[in-house]
Amino acid sequence: MSEAILEFTEIDGGITAPNGFRASGVYCGIRKVKKDIALITSDVPASVAAVFTLNKVLAAPVVVDKLLLKQGSGTCSAIVVNSGNANACTGEQGMKDAWEMVKATSTALQIPEAEVLISSTGVIGQYLPMDNVRQGIEQLPFLLSEEGSNDAALAIMTTDTYAKEVAVLLEVGGVPVRIGGIAKGSGMIAPNMATMLAFLSTDANVPQPLLQKTFGRLIDRSFNRISVDGDTSTNDMAVLLANGMSGAPALSEGTVDMKRFTTALEFVLVKLAKMIARDGEGATKLVEVVVSGASSESQALMAARSVANSNLVKTAIHGEDANWGRILCAVGYAGIVFDPAQVQLSLNGVPILEKNYGIVIDEAKAKDAFASENITIKINLNQGGESATFWTCDLSKEYVHINASYRS
Amino acid sequence: MSEAILEFTEIDGGITAPNGFRASGVYCGIRKVKKDIALITSDVPASVAAVFTLNKVLAAPVVVDKLLLKQGSGTCSAIVVNSGNANACTGEQGMKDAWEMVKATSTALQIPEAEVLISSTGVIGQYLPMDNVRQGIEQLPFLLSEEGSNDAALAIMTTDTYAKEVAVLLEVGGVPVRIGGIAKGSGMIAPNMATMLAFLSTDANVPQPLLQKTFGRLIDRSFNRISVDGDTSTNDMAVLLANGMSGAPALSEGTVDMKRFTTALEFVLVKLAKMIARDGEGATKLVEVVVSGASSESQALMAARSVANSNLVKTAIHGEDANWGRILCAVGYAGIVFDPAQVQLSLNGVPILEKNYGIVIDEAKAKDAFASENITIKINLNQGGESATFWTCDLSKEYVHINASYRS
Repeated sequence: MSEAILEFTEIDGGITAPNGFRASGVYCGIRKVKKDIALITSDVPASVAAVFTLNKVLAAPVVVDKLLLKQGSGTCSAIVVNSGNANACTGEQGMKDAWEMVKATSTALQIPEAEVLISSTGVIGQYLPMDNVRQGIEQLPFLLSEEGSNDAALAIMTTDTYAKEVAVLLEVGGVPVRIGGIAKGSGMIAPNMATMLAFLSTDANVPQPLLQKTFGRLIDRSFNRISVDGDTSTNDMAVLLANGMSGAPALSEGTVDMKRFTTALEFVLVKLAKMIARDGEGATKLVEVVVSGASSESQALMAARSVANSNLVKTAIHGEDANWGRILCAVGYAGIVFDPAQVQLSLNGVPILEKNYGIVIDEAKAKDAFASENITIKINLNQGGESATFWTCDLSKEYVHINASYRS
Repeated sequence: MSEAILEFTEIDGGITAPNGFRASGVYCGIRKVKKDIALITSDVPASVAAVFTLNKVLAAPVVVDKLLLKQGSGTCSAIVVNSGNANACTGEQGMKDAWEMVKATSTALQIPEAEVLISSTGVIGQYLPMDNVRQGIEQLPFLLSEEGSNDAALAIMTTDTYAKEVAVLLEVGGVPVRIGGIAKGSGMIAPNMATMLAFLSTDANVPQPLLQKTFGRLIDRSFNRISVDGDTSTNDMAVLLANGMSGAPALSEGTVDMKRFTTALEFVLVKLAKMIARDGEGATKLVEVVVSGASSESQALMAARSVANSNLVKTAIHGEDANWGRILCAVGYAGIVFDPAQVQLSLNGVPILEKNYGIVIDEAKAKDAFASENITIKINLNQGGESATFWTCDLSKEYVHINASYRS
């Protein structure tokens, strides 16, 4: 298959780039200052795919969404999202509040409750200020716009320092189709859905089962391969809505069109995931850990995750100190089978370690390479032909500062 | 069995408290300023028990020690330890240097090589400055003293802020017996032996197989239950020498004397382990995580470890912010089976959460409790009768500062 066939182009517009999607974001008083509640809608019921946190402690909105999806018909028209309060560990009151968010959205948009999904992010263990939430939900429909992606992206942010939006344009059956998305981090980010919210839209026509299958698989290759601090949150979710409003023919498994759509969707998810890693709390650098030469993809992933989660590696990168021994050490406790004497290491293309512990580091070059905002650690295990990539950020004093007083 | 039978008294003297043990520490030039090489000797060959890191990347001294113990007769008379350089990831040269440390010690003390153990801690991936090491090993025997514990404890320190020494006095068969020890942390500390070195001595008479069995079991309940940053190092080891010079009768399994010895040894190990956790890099508080009401000890331990390793919990404690949702969240991703609605939480005796998400926190009281240097987090899962305790420290900006420029 030629590259051209899988082609797509990056465009502006985020989650409202696809036809028939609108969004809005507003301040309702949950947080002290910034926009704190967002609405995303599809003009027609869209096929919905969703992935939720694996944390055993589920926030109320996650519990409610799972029920809604189970009882629904596989479609969704509106997602309402608040920041500043996670509505997690809030017991019966939290469940009541979550259901009220669903009802209020249903009433405000005049759509069935089964067409609504809700999401919350922020402090755990505090009740939602429902007067404010209600007020927000009443205002949001009046502000909906086809250019509303940025407002929504801003409203879902917690400690994020910038809004995260991506969109692409591709063709399906010769018809232009768009995929868009917004996401938020930025602490408590770890594989298997951390405090990470991602909302995706497309005007492609994708049957729900195929949408869910594809989305789940791609989440494993994107959002489940980033980590800021190894903490998996109670609230994470990623939702993809496909409303078919491009007018393109329905996608089906195994076709070139579906491959092109999958490639473009993976690009959007990975780009949003990398944005989250780069914008980790207090982060100054995006770190890409590439493990190759593994005997299996899962072994490669275990090694890459172990390096990406090492506080010692992350602080060394923050200090621009090529303390590569910590990298090899983190591979050593990753739980994989390998021969340390076969490992080769490089940092941003600068060779550090060759086989048989051949230390070839040029400290000056390594220091220069480390000055970059983008750090790629390549680890060749020389044990086989499989590889995996994982993204993280450096660990700074600012991370501690942010998290030592998050609630105040 | 009455408490009195298991009685012991804490005494001064550290690793040289037991009869027949001497130690010394000196500066030989591996580090920039402080003492960097230590020697611990027993006047007669002592039964030896040892536990090593589980990291797949083994430092040269660990490889050499494992060989020495395998080929030896279960006794050891001298341990030489350097700080400032881990002699890890150093390939053939590192192995050559490690063997030379053994030979130099053997020559200096005129004892067989099989009676020597070596240990290194510090930067990974740099060759030992062997001229300095040789010089140090030649000087150390002349400085040996029965009051040398503190010199040795100082010489094995890396980023530790204080020397860690413990000793106890007990009776075996009516004869006074002593157990002593020194240890060092203080980054890269995680369960299963992190950059953690611990050397223990006793003048009890303990057959080697019983010594190893007891020591291994107690390590699992002490050093394997502390974490500073979740990184397991390449160099960790704990060694216990028993030289019998108290003149007390030999210990045997299942006796009251052996129970008393085990209780006292566990006290020494746990106290050293807690000292390491408290002195974690940049730490300002010792944090004890007690999980009770678990269906098994291993489930309790998984939950306690997950909370203790959470950067978000550790930064909140540093900021004296009772952000308890992060604690429950960390239990949620610990991989254990439990019902979150059954969990009860308290912080230094202040109730925070009751069953069914009953949020009972008194923020003012919680803030006061958090001002303490010793924080105890109690988590009752209410799923069964098993429990486990794990120790860690808070995560501060100073941790980042230390580790961002460790090599410079």
